Amino acid sequence: MKKVAVVGYGNTKFTKDELPVESLLLESTKQVFDTTRNLSQDLVDGVIVSTNDNSKYLAAILSELSGIKPKISHTVEHLCSSGTNAVISGFSYIASGLADTVLISGADKVGNPGQVLEWDKSRGEFNHPIFWASMFTKAHKRQFNTTEEELAIVSAKNHKHAIDNPNAYSHTPYTISEIMNSKNVTDDLRILDCSYPCSGSSSILLASEDIAKKFTDQPIWISGIGQKTNSASFTKNELVTLSSSVIAVNNAYDMAKISSHEIDVAEIHDAFSVCELMAIEDLNLTEKNTSAAYVRNLFNTEDRKINPRGGLIGAGHPLGATGISQIIEITQQLQNRAAKRQISNANKGLVHNMSAAATSSTVLILES
Amino acid sequence: MKKVAVVGYGNTKFTKDELPVESLLLESTKQVFDTTRNLSQDLVDGVIVSTNDNSKYLAAILSELSGIKPKISHTVEHLCSSGTNAVISGFSYIASGLADTVLISGADKVGNPGQVLEWDKSRGEFNHPIFWASMFTKAHKRQFNTTEEELAIVSAKNHKHAIDNPNAYSHTPYTISEIMNSKNVTDDLRILDCSYPCSGSSSILLASEDIAKKFTDQPIWISGIGQKTNSASFTKNELVTLSSSVIAVNNAYDMAKISSHEIDVAEIHDAFSVCELMAIEDLNLTEKNTSAAYVRNLFNTEDRKINPRGGLIGAGHPLGATGISQIIEITQQLQNRAAKRQISNANKGLVHNMSAAATSSTVLILES
Repeated sequence: MKKVAVVGYGNTKFTKDELPVESLLLESTKQVFDTTRNLSQDLVDGVIVSTNDNSKYLAAILSELSGIKPKISHTVEHLCSSGTNAVISGFSYIASGLADTVLISGADKVGNPGQVLEWDKSRGEFNHPIFWASMFTKAHKRQFNTTEEELAIVSAKNHKHAIDNPNAYSHTPYTISEIMNSKNVTDDLRILDCSYPCSGSSSILLASEDIAKKFTDQPIWISGIGQKTNSASFTKNELVTLSSSVIAVNNAYDMAKISSHEIDVAEIHDAFSVCELMAIEDLNLTEKNTSAAYVRNLFNTEDRKINPRGGLIGAGHPLGATGISQIIEITQQLQNRAAKRQISNANKGLVHNMSAAATSSTVLILES
Repeated sequence: MKKVAVVGYGNTKFTKDELPVESLLLESTKQVFDTTRNLSQDLVDGVIVSTNDNSKYLAAILSELSGIKPKISHTVEHLCSSGTNAVISGFSYIASGLADTVLISGADKVGNPGQVLEWDKSRGEFNHPIFWASMFTKAHKRQFNTTEEELAIVSAKNHKHAIDNPNAYSHTPYTISEIMNSKNVTDDLRILDCSYPCSGSSSILLASEDIAKKFTDQPIWISGIGQKTNSASFTKNELVTLSSSVIAVNNAYDMAKISSHEIDVAEIHDAFSVCELMAIEDLNLTEKNTSAAYVRNLFNTEDRKINPRGGLIGAGHPLGATGISQIIEITQQLQNRAAKRQISNANKGLVHNMSAAATSSTVLILES
């Protein structure tokens, strides 16, 4: 298997503006070309678009708009995991030898499909993600005596981190008290515990080990991959474990031949506050039943190890772009190019993405 | 690069019934399980759905319906090429070592999007494929003195082949005269020169060389792959060459280390009669300006070498399923399991698929 690296990237700002998905894809792709050394259109072997948009043939449209005539070209969709899954698909073309370079460009716009689990009729009208997030939150409170304050700290931390992310949706430094007193959307969920649906795009360029150094002095290697789809519906009994994430992360650690203790920085899929508490335990970044204390300590010590760009809660959640923007953040951290968000001595990073109440999970390990 | 084989397959009938895409996907997937030796759900590492349907998360839904809990799971869309492109994506996961087996399941239903080039506004309202097919037909007549009878022979041949394909949309043996006298949909195109939009699903199982023989005594190897996207819009000057197909097939022949003369059987993307005439020349299956005579000879001698299952014209064209059903036909031919459609001594086969007036093309070479 050939080694594969992230060698270029581009991000739009994440906003509430209803922008056409084609414009969004083009903007982040243009940034890849503007900022990647020696990159020209004829060097791009594959263009994969990640989106939940209903428009068709977007990979060909993006290729034409940006002057690329790729071999590989298609759209990937898997709800919130679309971005990471498209990146892993790009990885596989390069690792297999079918391509030397693949551009993966993700975008969604406000109001796009995929934000409601339309097919999941098992709970009647309760098919919006806030309902499973409520169930998770209620269960977490019951099982671990998690308090409203502890949940609010996740959101406060991530909103605070987002202030130093120029592309983030939110630049407002919400206090714990403001979050706790924000509007209840269900009995157990406040509006400031939820990520923002928004418009945005993120793109990365992957390259094989043979040519990675042509594009950057600091290729960031994808050393571990884990994916798992347990189910399409939220029918499991366990409400306090993201079991697909557990399987995915173990496969990723095995492939990278590292342990969780070696992770310096992680992007976690905090679609709702409770998800971050659950995930950091399930990814073995802290012990079971210690996540609330762990996050409180990060917040108090201004340690940016978890969700340095602000997570989905602070940065926003344009579905098809999210996984790619997570990978860009870890890449920048490992390249020591994360500006005000920089964590010192970051050599190994983790990206955790998931879909539909973690019935699917995807994990990547990146190394400098 | 690990070798990858087709080791199982399933097809629904292609019909005009408006069936839910989930049911279609499940039906062809169930057939893969019913007919593939030693296959159990836990052995499937990846589930890739190929479709133009607007439903989201279909790979997870199909996985749940069929009892699979895959690692890799997502939908691929690239208009008419969705099926072949999804298969090549599955190939790359296995060739790279990320997976040992991948199920690729394609489906579309009557009335699904992707059959109109909605984004292509450069010719006003003329964004239905019949308009570019008309331009191709008019140009072919002008350049090569192609007659209406020669075009009709393509359709007559493929409708005739479809009679022996139990899954085909059409089982009517149209005569050349009936085709020539069928309704004009444009000045240069008759309704019986067009493929049928329809509902249908096709699924295949790919496996690595390490375990292919577990599932079948006759694995069919994917030895050559070529893909090219030249453009998203039909803005080229050339109206008598499928230039993306020329590039794709040359890459596929190079990868397989064979010449066009070694191809025993081919599935060609005959969305319209003229496409078959153009493609068999561009794929170098016959010399330039000989395709009409070549097809006439096939028809007169009842040689099934080109489009033995009836092509898109005879079998129907459920977009996301088409490329996969083409691969199944070649697999069955190379396994000597094509029943009444069987070509003798078929060892090497070719699949040609394309999108949007051949602005994208995909070619696969299969070998026994």
